[in-house]
Amino acid sequence: MAARSALEETELAEIHRFAVQLAKDAGQMLLAAVELRAGKTVREGHVEKESAVDLVTQTDEDVEAFIRSSIQAKYPSHAFCGEESYSKGGSKMYLIPPTGPAWCVDPLDGTVNFIHLCPFYCVSIAFTWNGEPMIGAINAPFLRQLFTACRGQGAWLNETISLPLDRSPIPPLPESAPKGCIFSCEWGKDRRDVPNGNLHRKVNSFMNMAAELGGRDGKGGHVHGVRSLGSATLDLAYCAMGSFDIWWEGGCWEWDVAAGICLLKEAGGLVTSANPPNDPSTAPVLDAHLGSRLYLALRPAGDSATETGRQTQERTVREVWRRVQQLDYNRPGVQ
Amino acid sequence: MAARSALEETELAEIHRFAVQLAKDAGQMLLAAVELRAGKTVREGHVEKESAVDLVTQTDEDVEAFIRSSIQAKYPSHAFCGEESYSKGGSKMYLIPPTGPAWCVDPLDGTVNFIHLCPFYCVSIAFTWNGEPMIGAINAPFLRQLFTACRGQGAWLNETISLPLDRSPIPPLPESAPKGCIFSCEWGKDRRDVPNGNLHRKVNSFMNMAAELGGRDGKGGHVHGVRSLGSATLDLAYCAMGSFDIWWEGGCWEWDVAAGICLLKEAGGLVTSANPPNDPSTAPVLDAHLGSRLYLALRPAGDSATETGRQTQERTVREVWRRVQQLDYNRPGVQ
Repeated sequence: MAARSALEETELAEIHRFAVQLAKDAGQMLLAAVELRAGKTVREGHVEKESAVDLVTQTDEDVEAFIRSSIQAKYPSHAFCGEESYSKGGSKMYLIPPTGPAWCVDPLDGTVNFIHLCPFYCVSIAFTWNGEPMIGAINAPFLRQLFTACRGQGAWLNETISLPLDRSPIPPLPESAPKGCIFSCEWGKDRRDVPNGNLHRKVNSFMNMAAELGGRDGKGGHVHGVRSLGSATLDLAYCAMGSFDIWWEGGCWEWDVAAGICLLKEAGGLVTSANPPNDPSTAPVLDAHLGSRLYLALRPAGDSATETGRQTQERTVREVWRRVQQLDYNRPGVQ
Repeated sequence: MAARSALEETELAEIHRFAVQLAKDAGQMLLAAVELRAGKTVREGHVEKESAVDLVTQTDEDVEAFIRSSIQAKYPSHAFCGEESYSKGGSKMYLIPPTGPAWCVDPLDGTVNFIHLCPFYCVSIAFTWNGEPMIGAINAPFLRQLFTACRGQGAWLNETISLPLDRSPIPPLPESAPKGCIFSCEWGKDRRDVPNGNLHRKVNSFMNMAAELGGRDGKGGHVHGVRSLGSATLDLAYCAMGSFDIWWEGGCWEWDVAAGICLLKEAGGLVTSANPPNDPSTAPVLDAHLGSRLYLALRPAGDSATETGRQTQERTVREVWRRVQQLDYNRPGVQ
């Protein structure tokens, strides 16, 4: 297939079925690893929670090895980018090929949650074609939530419920957005207490989104709620469900978001850059680059009496951009 | 029964079965209300998301009316305190009677989530005796998570999995806690941008917990992750599972926490005041007052080589107290 320039629909459907089965099987591996830890008895000494980190790394690697070998057996010509194999290379270059077929896989997103037996972890499998996510399969086995999507075909929860959650018509975003919205965000791993560092920029942005209208020198957004799950993949999936209205985050990687972006777009959502442009009120709302590490996602939105769904999304993007600060997560090869 | 001074074990077991069935039935009502909204078609005009607030209030009231009438039919002498009926009274007094049997019910915790079709909502039913929560039944139907507990009997997920998640032995809290912990917190409803108001005090406290060790003038706690679900009840349930290590919150009410406190204590957790005493390093770690609106919860913790589980919890309480600010959620009749 790698030699062909176009991807046929029947082929895409077959790859979709294969990806969904992979996500189911990998999800079972994650669940089994948790059950093993939860139920295990230790004859002497004590299980220090910190030591679970090693176990988790082993699970990460086992699940990625399973997914990679399954893909290589069925589609030997496809490129493969997985979190664990990527991390072993020293480069931080963006490696999804701009042409042809590739897979972008996070065997375990929400690792901290997994370590703590907290339900918000999942496997994330994306198939890309010419650099674009075409198929997404996300399985959160403890939550019993399987999210799947195929370009042009739609997005589903547990294979039967259309996203966004079967609503007809899909509600527009609130006229006063971000007021009335659920805002999802993550504290992330950069915890340096540097006055202008990412942690302070993030929390200033969270505060702007949360504070009353008129507060924060006019930047108060008075969102309906602020949520943090600790999984970028699930944040995107919950946007696709319509459960989160807005997700704003910097610092995650392509394997964290590739399947989720496919899911969200198929459900009717929008993903652009977390970092506000120089003129947030007029700059075009461009699709986020998969490797940009900076994402602002909006849930699917229906038309209102005065705007199209896309217009309500773009209006909300600009209102978020007006309230958030630039984050610094640059990498070589991606602007 | 109200006339008796002691509660017999057989009676408690019967009330437990009744409470669990109530939580199951009420959970089905919540799920049906969501499915009705998710699947409904509107012939003309548009479904404004904001208007869903009315629907939710109706669901709140319907579920509470069902629970209240069920209890009154079976236990006519028991006192009843539910969020909806309480809110209709003008008083903010604490109404759980100090003697005899009573029920403390939130028909729908996580209302904002429910409005947004976000999975983190639940019904919370507690039975108290002489002011103490004896039975808790919490049902999060979209998550398919039913949490139940009975004083002296234990705590369970979906009636079969013992909390904290069947682990044997239960791990102690990390030696360097709060480092290594999952910290759960909520942004809440008080969004006033007042320099020394609750929003700023909360976010300063969150920042202290999140920032690197040595940062924030020595208050950096470098927690492993910061989570916000938007439901106090589920925060407590997730502590009881062992998924969250620490939950710190002010502003919620007794119906938000009564069942969760019963659950967490039965699992082996601890609940004390969110507000640090004058001397956090030596003050006794007292049980939180059910009506205090200020809660700091610690997950169940096993013994380490050098400390009992209770000692690791108390040590962690003091480390949290050292990093958080006083919150102001006073009410008449409760210190």
